[in-house]
Amino acid sequence: MSLKEIGEFGFIRRIGGGCLSRPQGVVRGIGDDAAAFRTDGRLLALVTTDMLVERVHFLRAATGGRDLGHKSLAVNLSDIAAMGGTAREAFVAIAVPDDLSLSYLEELFAGMKALAQAHEVNILGGDTTRSAADLVISVTVYGTVAEAELLTRDGARPGDVIFCTGCLGDSRAGLHLILEEVGADTPALRALLAAHHRPSPHLAEGRFLAGRPGVHAAIDVSDGLSSDVGHIAAQSRVGARLVADDIPVSEQLQDYCRRFGRSALEYALAGGEDYTLLVAAAAEAAGDLARDFEKAFERPLHAIGVITAGAGIELVEPGGRIRPIPPTGWDHFKRS
Amino acid sequence: MSLKEIGEFGFIRRIGGGCLSRPQGVVRGIGDDAAAFRTDGRLLALVTTDMLVERVHFLRAATGGRDLGHKSLAVNLSDIAAMGGTAREAFVAIAVPDDLSLSYLEELFAGMKALAQAHEVNILGGDTTRSAADLVISVTVYGTVAEAELLTRDGARPGDVIFCTGCLGDSRAGLHLILEEVGADTPALRALLAAHHRPSPHLAEGRFLAGRPGVHAAIDVSDGLSSDVGHIAAQSRVGARLVADDIPVSEQLQDYCRRFGRSALEYALAGGEDYTLLVAAAAEAAGDLARDFEKAFERPLHAIGVITAGAGIELVEPGGRIRPIPPTGWDHFKRS
Repeated sequence: MSLKEIGEFGFIRRIGGGCLSRPQGVVRGIGDDAAAFRTDGRLLALVTTDMLVERVHFLRAATGGRDLGHKSLAVNLSDIAAMGGTAREAFVAIAVPDDLSLSYLEELFAGMKALAQAHEVNILGGDTTRSAADLVISVTVYGTVAEAELLTRDGARPGDVIFCTGCLGDSRAGLHLILEEVGADTPALRALLAAHHRPSPHLAEGRFLAGRPGVHAAIDVSDGLSSDVGHIAAQSRVGARLVADDIPVSEQLQDYCRRFGRSALEYALAGGEDYTLLVAAAAEAAGDLARDFEKAFERPLHAIGVITAGAGIELVEPGGRIRPIPPTGWDHFKRS
Repeated sequence: MSLKEIGEFGFIRRIGGGCLSRPQGVVRGIGDDAAAFRTDGRLLALVTTDMLVERVHFLRAATGGRDLGHKSLAVNLSDIAAMGGTAREAFVAIAVPDDLSLSYLEELFAGMKALAQAHEVNILGGDTTRSAADLVISVTVYGTVAEAELLTRDGARPGDVIFCTGCLGDSRAGLHLILEEVGADTPALRALLAAHHRPSPHLAEGRFLAGRPGVHAAIDVSDGLSSDVGHIAAQSRVGARLVADDIPVSEQLQDYCRRFGRSALEYALAGGEDYTLLVAAAAEAAGDLARDFEKAFERPLHAIGVITAGAGIELVEPGGRIRPIPPTGWDHFKRS
């Protein structure tokens, strides 16, 4: 059997046993956006790690050092956001091929430091080593959260409203522009590229949601909306119904889709790397939550569906027809 | 300018600026064996990360999965040991090439879990992704230590005795056997291979030393004795004098050196990857420290030299002649 056959999530299930030798104090281990564990203080510690690999996650020729540094930290900060936490310290391990210039590397760290500073995160250490082939960056972020405010994937309940904190699909369109070597010749296309290269971790949004009553579950959209709703549904043992017309897509994505003959809905559902947050919140809290979110962030919290008692994810299509949708988001190995 | 010209340590100096956006609470950032920072509890948090890259740190054909899993965690536990800490949680990011078998990967995790369990460490999370070429493993370990017991590199004082907690040079001899494809046909050669593949992190030794009066500085021997004493000396702004005859080398290393015409002293000084601890301790505490260490661990704590007021590292040769020694240990980029 190969990793390709069982996929990333199959592998995680397979090696998950025997990982806890001291389970007391572990609030979340493998399987959520970040691990959460008790320390000798009042707050939980959160730790997440994400690795970006050349020719798998990015093409060096198409990715500036500054963008790559930004993104490699941003994807980790987004995991802390999805747990409702405050990001505090970052650690950067990097494997550097001989043909990488020092200036690229300095740009990479400049991009990382700028994002770190914007979120009051320290870069406290790491490891710098050679690589015989590809550039590899592995960032680990430590954060904190009060146990009562921890957001996890497994708390969604039937009837909950599913919200997302921003538009979906832009990043996948940006990736398409890169892979097809389309020049980003308009502000709209440049915005799509930026969504792919420089995602904004929704840390403030995560903190806002973590402190609110009735928020039951959260995840960040990294694999793709359908997959990530699927993770919440599977871990909460519920189903979900998304409403196509309510899924927020940007004007630039709509322009792009008209120009290149693509479906914005498909990009929003299956694209991935959006790094907005998805949350499931009690219906009775939903109105206040959306109103207060909009007041705090000056943009809407988008209600895009509901949690159902069944299993599986359904989509209400624009015409009203309901169809099941597969978790078509990203699995590194199954897609390879 | 390239990374090769300025080296790993030159690069770390170059990118070290601007890493702290919230310096309060940071006890140690970049430049020690692990970062140390305050949390809302009584204990300091320690975090370290080390990346192992195929064709740079190991050859897959010569390294079993179980050994590789063991080592990738061990090198991180050793960093926690060098800070005097208790290792608690581990996070594993891994980039997997398509031609790696699932069974190799399962062995890798089995090796890691066995070592984790031996030290009551949890594996709490990570990231599993594809690699287009090499197998890359990046492990991050979180640990704790009371601030009063923290061991750092920068506290050595002239007159301190330099101790090490075990034999040096075996790992480098094991690497030689691998690179030269020499079959390990005797128990002695197998012991050298094991020293390279399955180093033992000196966590208990680190905890013992951290709790003792007069221990001023510590580091683990990863780059090589001369380099690692050099790190203590540079960061403490002192010099060091090592006594060749006092540097502990194993019987199997002596056998090996006779057979292959090598110098055990050279391997001990410049080999690296030994993962014993080096400490500098006040002369007046040295006697009790060595006696109590031997009582606790049933093997000697080796006094191998003294900290001097000068700069640079000197070696007292077997004949009594004193010569300066360069920091000939490992720098990934300068050696490349």
